[in-house]
Amino acid sequence: MTPPCLLDPADPADALALRPWLALQSALCFRPDLAVALLREHGDPEPALRASGAPCAPACEIEASLATLRRVGAAGLPISSSAYPHRLARYADAAPLLLVQGDPAALAAPGIAIVGSRAATQHGLALARDFAAAFARAGLVVISGLARGIDAAAHTGALEAGGRTIAVQACGPDLVYPAAHRRLASRISSQGARITEFPPGTPPRPQHFPLRNRLISGLAEALLVIEARERSGTLVTAGHAAAQGLDVFALPGPVGAQACAGSNRLLRDGVHVALEPEDVLGVLRLGGLRVEPIPGATARAPAAVPASPLGAAILAALERAPAHRDELARRLARAPQELALELLELELAGRIREERDGRLRVVSPRGTREL
Amino acid sequence: MTPPCLLDPADPADALALRPWLALQSALCFRPDLAVALLREHGDPEPALRASGAPCAPACEIEASLATLRRVGAAGLPISSSAYPHRLARYADAAPLLLVQGDPAALAAPGIAIVGSRAATQHGLALARDFAAAFARAGLVVISGLARGIDAAAHTGALEAGGRTIAVQACGPDLVYPAAHRRLASRISSQGARITEFPPGTPPRPQHFPLRNRLISGLAEALLVIEARERSGTLVTAGHAAAQGLDVFALPGPVGAQACAGSNRLLRDGVHVALEPEDVLGVLRLGGLRVEPIPGATARAPAAVPASPLGAAILAALERAPAHRDELARRLARAPQELALELLELELAGRIREERDGRLRVVSPRGTREL
Repeated sequence: MTPPCLLDPADPADALALRPWLALQSALCFRPDLAVALLREHGDPEPALRASGAPCAPACEIEASLATLRRVGAAGLPISSSAYPHRLARYADAAPLLLVQGDPAALAAPGIAIVGSRAATQHGLALARDFAAAFARAGLVVISGLARGIDAAAHTGALEAGGRTIAVQACGPDLVYPAAHRRLASRISSQGARITEFPPGTPPRPQHFPLRNRLISGLAEALLVIEARERSGTLVTAGHAAAQGLDVFALPGPVGAQACAGSNRLLRDGVHVALEPEDVLGVLRLGGLRVEPIPGATARAPAAVPASPLGAAILAALERAPAHRDELARRLARAPQELALELLELELAGRIREERDGRLRVVSPRGTREL
Repeated sequence: MTPPCLLDPADPADALALRPWLALQSALCFRPDLAVALLREHGDPEPALRASGAPCAPACEIEASLATLRRVGAAGLPISSSAYPHRLARYADAAPLLLVQGDPAALAAPGIAIVGSRAATQHGLALARDFAAAFARAGLVVISGLARGIDAAAHTGALEAGGRTIAVQACGPDLVYPAAHRRLASRISSQGARITEFPPGTPPRPQHFPLRNRLISGLAEALLVIEARERSGTLVTAGHAAAQGLDVFALPGPVGAQACAGSNRLLRDGVHVALEPEDVLGVLRLGGLRVEPIPGATARAPAAVPASPLGAAILAALERAPAHRDELARRLARAPQELALELLELELAGRIREERDGRLRVVSPRGTREL
């Protein structure tokens, strides 16, 4: 059953109310700023559309749209509805009508957008999943664009953590792009929501993506960029987010790697560095957002550098019992000067330590350090 | 011939002047702050040493040190000399006496410290060489610690670019640590300088490195960190540099990589992001440093994402001549709908573009972008 704040195309009264919104969407979905301005002036979609001078779609087209919405289980969420996301409603280029498949409550909860490259590395995909899962566990909705690469990994991470996620589409609600994500899209609808501002039947076109990107950031409290290339849509989204006053975060990547050239540049230009989910959650909390700490999130200990064969023999001998240098040399049947350099290496690596009594002792791996 | 501002151990008058400095060094090389304070109070090394209450090394030891300095061609540079690096002299824990092998003029020129992990990745080593070469070409002296890994790569990059470099040692001037860097050390002496505050014969010991690190940053205008692990000496150096008021830069690395965990944390905590040498040089110029632009430094174009077989066929066909969708389908002997998705992919990847007349055209690789 559709909640009362959404317009259900299967309900005759709702369908009646939805028609003028669909007409406005059909005429002005590429000019949301104009549509919002006219709505603010005229109050209702019908006079707004008349005032725009744009031709009104024939009634049969609107009926076909309603039929499509009913077929795919999408409801209408006009900007005038109390269920329309408050954050998005503030923007002058908000979407006059969102078409929603799934739970509209996901749109009301605080969310974080995760975006990045379609051609992401395996490492980037794993990070996207991990961050999304942590945000979802913290009670945040993960918002992304259903694209290949980082988008899909972020949605998946949130779903696998049992959390909620929103996919913002660059095509009508009856289409899934890319088609390979059809199963993912239906999981999203059942555990969150898929939304679009494009009329039923609208194919994905390159010029839709910049519009789609502003909704991704417009729904979110903060934006996290994972692996963005230069001159990418991800950077456009980051630009929207900065203009919308969001906290923008990026993960650092290797200098010189194309996959991270855009995200690294964002960092150079001053966005927040995120190394772990807590970096983002901490800033959001400072901003007044109430989120719960992530259970079980701990820093990992650095891995120990492997020792040489002689170093390994020294470590094994000292593990059995701490010893003075001379005693250690006797144990290993070596001259003390043969061990001197290797002992220095091990000390430098923080693997062994000289005690006050002059005996050498193995340091636990967590004590690994470089001098 | 040793310049007059340095104390030449082979010159009898200089040797006479050098003796009390060597005695002070021998007694207080682990307490530079105390030595500097006493020198400020008492003016000369002899009364300063007397006032410290530390035992004076026997004369024969000082003679042996002088002999060692003569043998290895090291000169003495007391803090009272006009050739002593001005920047370093400001600090309360400056070295009272530097032992210098090479050209002391390198100590007077503006320099940048490059530090990082001994266990660096090949990528990190290449970056260290490239950044060092660019700084050297810009007229900056590259300062580092002669250690394995990033240090050695930074020295090498500066030398290969025909520039100057300074190695700060954690042992006496007659030793090279690690021994494998003996050839590198002698190239550094002939194309810059090796310096140390430790008396002749002092072996490298773990507790020397934190002291050495403060000199590396103390000589520099800025510090660049390339690949630092957590709890590493590199982070200690970065801490010194920040306390000394230097601009600190770090290169971003992959999140989760141990080799970059420390440098990434520096970035998260607010040090400058460096993606290319110009990022550092630009900040130094803003700070009033006059350095020349690096010749030939240009941004690289992003690599194009490989296309699928069908995508490659489409690109090849459109390279021969732009075409409408239907015409393209005929050329490739396909139904138009077979091409639709692939065309969208190519458009999204910025590989092709639809012109105003509806014809599709290949975009040059430099135009690659993601939507």
